[in-house]
Amino acid sequence: MSTETDPAPRARGILDMNSFDLGSGEVSPAVRRRLANLGSASVLFYRNPIEMVSAEGAWMIARDGQRYLDMYNNVPVVGHGHPEVIEAVTRQMRQLNTHTRYVVGVVDDYIEALKATLPAGLDNVVLTCSGSEANDLAMRLARRVSGGQGIIVTENAYHGNTAIVTEVSPAAIRNTALAEHVVTVPAPSRENFGDDIAGGFAGAVEAAIRQLRRRGIAPAALLVDTIFSSDGVHADPAGFLVPAVAAMRKAGGLFIADEVQPGFGRTGEAFWAVQRHGIEPDILTMGKPMGNGFPMAAMATHPEYLDAYCDDYGYFNTFGGNPVAAAAGHATLRVIQREGLMENARDIGARLRAELRAIADRSPCLAAVRGTGLFIGIDVCEPDRPRTPAPERTLRILEALQGRNILTGSAGKFGATIRVRPPLCITRDQADIFIDTFSAIMSEMEGGDAGYAASGRYRPAGHEYV
Amino acid sequence: MSTETDPAPRARGILDMNSFDLGSGEVSPAVRRRLANLGSASVLFYRNPIEMVSAEGAWMIARDGQRYLDMYNNVPVVGHGHPEVIEAVTRQMRQLNTHTRYVVGVVDDYIEALKATLPAGLDNVVLTCSGSEANDLAMRLARRVSGGQGIIVTENAYHGNTAIVTEVSPAAIRNTALAEHVVTVPAPSRENFGDDIAGGFAGAVEAAIRQLRRRGIAPAALLVDTIFSSDGVHADPAGFLVPAVAAMRKAGGLFIADEVQPGFGRTGEAFWAVQRHGIEPDILTMGKPMGNGFPMAAMATHPEYLDAYCDDYGYFNTFGGNPVAAAAGHATLRVIQREGLMENARDIGARLRAELRAIADRSPCLAAVRGTGLFIGIDVCEPDRPRTPAPERTLRILEALQGRNILTGSAGKFGATIRVRPPLCITRDQADIFIDTFSAIMSEMEGGDAGYAASGRYRPAGHEYV
Repeated sequence: MSTETDPAPRARGILDMNSFDLGSGEVSPAVRRRLANLGSASVLFYRNPIEMVSAEGAWMIARDGQRYLDMYNNVPVVGHGHPEVIEAVTRQMRQLNTHTRYVVGVVDDYIEALKATLPAGLDNVVLTCSGSEANDLAMRLARRVSGGQGIIVTENAYHGNTAIVTEVSPAAIRNTALAEHVVTVPAPSRENFGDDIAGGFAGAVEAAIRQLRRRGIAPAALLVDTIFSSDGVHADPAGFLVPAVAAMRKAGGLFIADEVQPGFGRTGEAFWAVQRHGIEPDILTMGKPMGNGFPMAAMATHPEYLDAYCDDYGYFNTFGGNPVAAAAGHATLRVIQREGLMENARDIGARLRAELRAIADRSPCLAAVRGTGLFIGIDVCEPDRPRTPAPERTLRILEALQGRNILTGSAGKFGATIRVRPPLCITRDQADIFIDTFSAIMSEMEGGDAGYAASGRYRPAGHEYV
Repeated sequence: MSTETDPAPRARGILDMNSFDLGSGEVSPAVRRRLANLGSASVLFYRNPIEMVSAEGAWMIARDGQRYLDMYNNVPVVGHGHPEVIEAVTRQMRQLNTHTRYVVGVVDDYIEALKATLPAGLDNVVLTCSGSEANDLAMRLARRVSGGQGIIVTENAYHGNTAIVTEVSPAAIRNTALAEHVVTVPAPSRENFGDDIAGGFAGAVEAAIRQLRRRGIAPAALLVDTIFSSDGVHADPAGFLVPAVAAMRKAGGLFIADEVQPGFGRTGEAFWAVQRHGIEPDILTMGKPMGNGFPMAAMATHPEYLDAYCDDYGYFNTFGGNPVAAAAGHATLRVIQREGLMENARDIGARLRAELRAIADRSPCLAAVRGTGLFIGIDVCEPDRPRTPAPERTLRILEALQGRNILTGSAGKFGATIRVRPPLCITRDQADIFIDTFSAIMSEMEGGDAGYAASGRYRPAGHEYV
């Protein structure tokens, strides 16, 4: 099955998926229009893409009136259309929106509130527009500080969309090889390393450092998404990152914690996933949920590391750190803290995993349930073959969930991990809707497996990036 | 004078500038706080930075109650706090904010309105968060399509802040050399090329192509800011870019028009500066004024160029193309068109240049006035030595303008060009305030030149980027 050996997402997936429809006019006018405007960079979810018109809390409403429970989008962290964030943005837009060449108090108010949540020593915060920009700058700092060029990432990592960040994002690479200065390590999973994930992962990082050195390249950084989202969600045992980070530091490189996905309380037990591992990173990047959808991100680091970079280059970001972004970020942070959304992520997440494990126990097609807080991965396998990933079956489950008004996505090297990652405001009732629906789909699928005609004409597209 | 041979901006400029103050406590608590939060990446305008609290139209209001006429910020193109843009953003935030993995009609409505303004053939639009992201992607497309790696830019170019874009931004580079694949050409000025700017600039591009080839590097693109903002504003004669673009295409490379600064009507005579030159670029990037301050930007290109890149790599941008950005962009575009702001830029700009030329004619310290629409450069020189740029005098004029409540900035290889670039909604009365104030300052300065104690302790910092 080609999807098992070629897990890279296809940005032209929607064209591929619907190619059998284009001639017969089955593509909707809305989709046709989208393809004409965005072209190859347009990747839509699902073979039958959804046209959305509104959203509120954990619900999204489509053009045809269908209401979908959003179990996937990690950007609207306090809920779609949260009034407090909207009010903060509107008020600040009326007041003042400008760049950081002037002093604006609300920007510093926000940075100070943010710094109070961060691991020790990360006292300078560079506000950017996207996680990509934050990781792009983080890599440059690591190279400047270490003197090396080599970057070690996981084998299905995704860190963003700029040129140098795409180089360290195997999940975004299609027809080209990895650059010489990039070496990958397997995801920190039981499948890859058995019971000693910490030791196995550190050993893989050490081997990658040796591989870089054989190429004459000094290591600059170990860069990981601290929940390993695109690698299939790997959270346990907490602390497994410690020896790998130590190995990189011993080799003269830095540890960059990419918290763009797990940050801001999603992992339930700590505000930043790296804190769950008991690590103080050299650089921490953040993004997606930071402004509940307002475009903003940041890189936090030690002042001397930023100084070193700024000795060589000036850095300015026109939109980064504007007071409207600060207002959005501050309101989002305030709601997360006041409404106890980290604790909600911990509690609802634990409930979801317990229920999902019960379903997995009785399902021959579910191999494992992983995660922490509201970041959950469910491995889908061939019936009674837990070591055999089943990407086509995963797509069928995603589409069955779509058909019953629940939005999810997939991830992992083989595209065979269902990823569950709802807004942190999700309620117990909403979690139960997901569980009941998922349970019913798994029961029916196991009963009627042969009846599903796998077309083989589509690929697991578009599941890596968001 | 060190500033004449070292025009590169200093991101630590504010620390350098105020270093004599830090010990004696003369730095305000607000500035001290800013430095602690943003560190070396913080570059503030003016030796005495301004703390801003609000803004409306072309006015910005500081903490101390001073009202400043904003003659510099090209982001709030339809005016600070324009109610129509704010209303559009607020309404869309309430309705729906999500990514491009779902179809959302307002995104396509906006792209189609935008495409109607663009040069022919640029039918695919990739929406990003920043001009940096747009230029970063544009460079990758040019490299993929041309097969080359070499990029030719002007010698004081600024194109943004990602790693590969910083490489082609000499204005941002301090203590390192240009990369081997980057070759610069002089700005297209009369000083550099005499009366034949078109021929001279094309000759410089041809020489740069030869230089790349001698290094074994094929040219990928000529990348220019089509108003040459950081090089000091070079607009005339319209059409001078034509032979340079032809030379690059003949060599197999592409022409990338960086319209992040001049786009959206600012140049008065055309919606895109490149149209004034009669050129259809291969790739056009846009940003700053696009959403009147909402973080958004874009790259527009031929579908086959985007296809080629997407054969190798997937591209997705979480915040790029979200419906709130589309609403902001569409409202901004609507206001520009309905209120005739391009025509206002043409008319007020012509009036400003005429008045400025009259002042320059009687001032021994002003060598030239250039520009088109509301993008104006005023060269400052040593008295009666029009070929000798005067960066320290330029700073004194900027500070004198600050002292009389007018915001401007500087640019150019020597930091000796005053840059005038107000919101496009500026009125004739506001333009007259600027002219009267500038005229008075020039008269006083010429009368009391010797009385000004040039400290030599500060540098022309922070004027290149915005």
